[in-house]
Amino acid sequence: MISFPVNLDDSKECAKLLDEIDFVVVDCDGVLWLNMSLLPGCDRTINVLRKNGKKIIFATNNSSKSRQEMLKKLNDMGFNATIDEVMITSFALCVYLKQMNFSGKVYIFGNVNGGTRGIADELTAAGIECTGVGKDPMANDGDMFPNVTLDCDVKAVVVAYDNYISLPKLVKACTYARTVDPRFFIATNADESFPTPMKHLLIPGTGAFVAFVETASGRKPVTLGKPGTFFFECLKAIAPDINPQKTVMIGDRLNSDIAFGNNNGFRYTIHVQTGVDSLNDVKECIERGEKHLVPSHYINSIADLNKFIDG
Amino acid sequence: MISFPVNLDDSKECAKLLDEIDFVVVDCDGVLWLNMSLLPGCDRTINVLRKNGKKIIFATNNSSKSRQEMLKKLNDMGFNATIDEVMITSFALCVYLKQMNFSGKVYIFGNVNGGTRGIADELTAAGIECTGVGKDPMANDGDMFPNVTLDCDVKAVVVAYDNYISLPKLVKACTYARTVDPRFFIATNADESFPTPMKHLLIPGTGAFVAFVETASGRKPVTLGKPGTFFFECLKAIAPDINPQKTVMIGDRLNSDIAFGNNNGFRYTIHVQTGVDSLNDVKECIERGEKHLVPSHYINSIADLNKFIDG
Repeated sequence: MISFPVNLDDSKECAKLLDEIDFVVVDCDGVLWLNMSLLPGCDRTINVLRKNGKKIIFATNNSSKSRQEMLKKLNDMGFNATIDEVMITSFALCVYLKQMNFSGKVYIFGNVNGGTRGIADELTAAGIECTGVGKDPMANDGDMFPNVTLDCDVKAVVVAYDNYISLPKLVKACTYARTVDPRFFIATNADESFPTPMKHLLIPGTGAFVAFVETASGRKPVTLGKPGTFFFECLKAIAPDINPQKTVMIGDRLNSDIAFGNNNGFRYTIHVQTGVDSLNDVKECIERGEKHLVPSHYINSIADLNKFIDG
Repeated sequence: MISFPVNLDDSKECAKLLDEIDFVVVDCDGVLWLNMSLLPGCDRTINVLRKNGKKIIFATNNSSKSRQEMLKKLNDMGFNATIDEVMITSFALCVYLKQMNFSGKVYIFGNVNGGTRGIADELTAAGIECTGVGKDPMANDGDMFPNVTLDCDVKAVVVAYDNYISLPKLVKACTYARTVDPRFFIATNADESFPTPMKHLLIPGTGAFVAFVETASGRKPVTLGKPGTFFFECLKAIAPDINPQKTVMIGDRLNSDIAFGNNNGFRYTIHVQTGVDSLNDVKECIERGEKHLVPSHYINSIADLNKFIDG
């Protein structure tokens, strides 16, 4: 029998939880903001927790920015963050490639976001050569099959969210995924969809792009983001003293954020209702007996904690 | 113990097989041609079989053409085909929608091929309204998420091979796939990759596009093409006297063509080496005990039969 999560919108429950934790690992999209819109009051929650001595880590599966650019977004949104608080999968990719002693060029199936080049900027800063970011239209418009040119220096392919998806890019990603060393067919994350303010639309997540390349190539990628354990290795790289028994994970996705907390033995996991999954999804996980997807606590928005925390 | 398939490149074996069958169901891409290139001699094989009294059915999972356009391609390539010999998934889609008494508009995630509009033409000919074919670029270039406009008349979505793939089209396909009656989230086929003459490239098949929409929407489509039994219903619609015990299936894909023959109790299945799967893939299926994927016979190309059949 799996217990239903505790409602954290209660001063006693909140005080108890905060008393027992030192580390707050918080997802971004769907928890702190939706695309470019701050979820009101969330900046205060995080800033007050930090002021009260909690160590904050912003941990996102998103790879659309470099670590520096994510810091800028956090600061612009009102979070008094510092660079050592930021963990993003574009940076996790560098940690992974360095750890595997990678040499060669990386083909990036990934996005350009208002002038920023996310993964490409992060790889370049780490001294790793890369290619692929941006538009790549068909040479002969209307071709059934694009006859693309491959780059023989490419020894790794990373699949992320790509707003310039096109058939030539997909052919490249699939061909590289089939030919590179299997350790270097990499997915930033497996999130199936994206939390956005446009509720009537289903915005596909990186997991959908990954499923495409996986199906065509017949190969499984190494996946870097939550809920995997490698992402916890990355957190330890920036917060060596992190202790799961004194850590809470806050997120909107059950199979990503909550599973990450549970898979890594975090003391608490808090589910918020401001992103992809709802409290009804939690109920369904309980009914299906999927314990690793069930949070210890839930609350509508982390901004609801503001009434219980002094600052 | 699964038997290794019999080599059909042998006059006695060939005579025995031809003696026992009345119907030849033959795949097209990878068996008769690669993209626009005829596999030499295959036209003669099929034409002579027809002359010898065998009933031919060209049965393709491809949906890039209407039935009439596929007939034109067959004729242009030298196959003396007639319209009642052609079964293509764009036509199977119409059979399916009529059978389900569908009313409403169909959103097509599918291709435009040198001026032909495949599924759209077939649906229009059948009196079914549709939308979606062609280009659909992002309104604001560089947006992370396209804010697309939905068509509230859309009550079905079909996912096929699309050479104009773009993020707005994918958002529409995923959103419709989540909202329409589950019977009307339709995939033309599940082929993972495409046989082409460009051997150094991996060209993703419709199955990869389907995996994308399936992952984002969390829904499974109704799949029309081989290896499913509905496709055999379609064959019966154009050849009511087809008798599986007197039928041979010829194809290059094990999980599509050969599985189709086996799933529907065809007397014989012939695997050719001119398309996606190799004889080594057959060996691996035998080792894994996947009996439904193992053909009764194999041959390099059906043109190799020319030396055994009179015409």
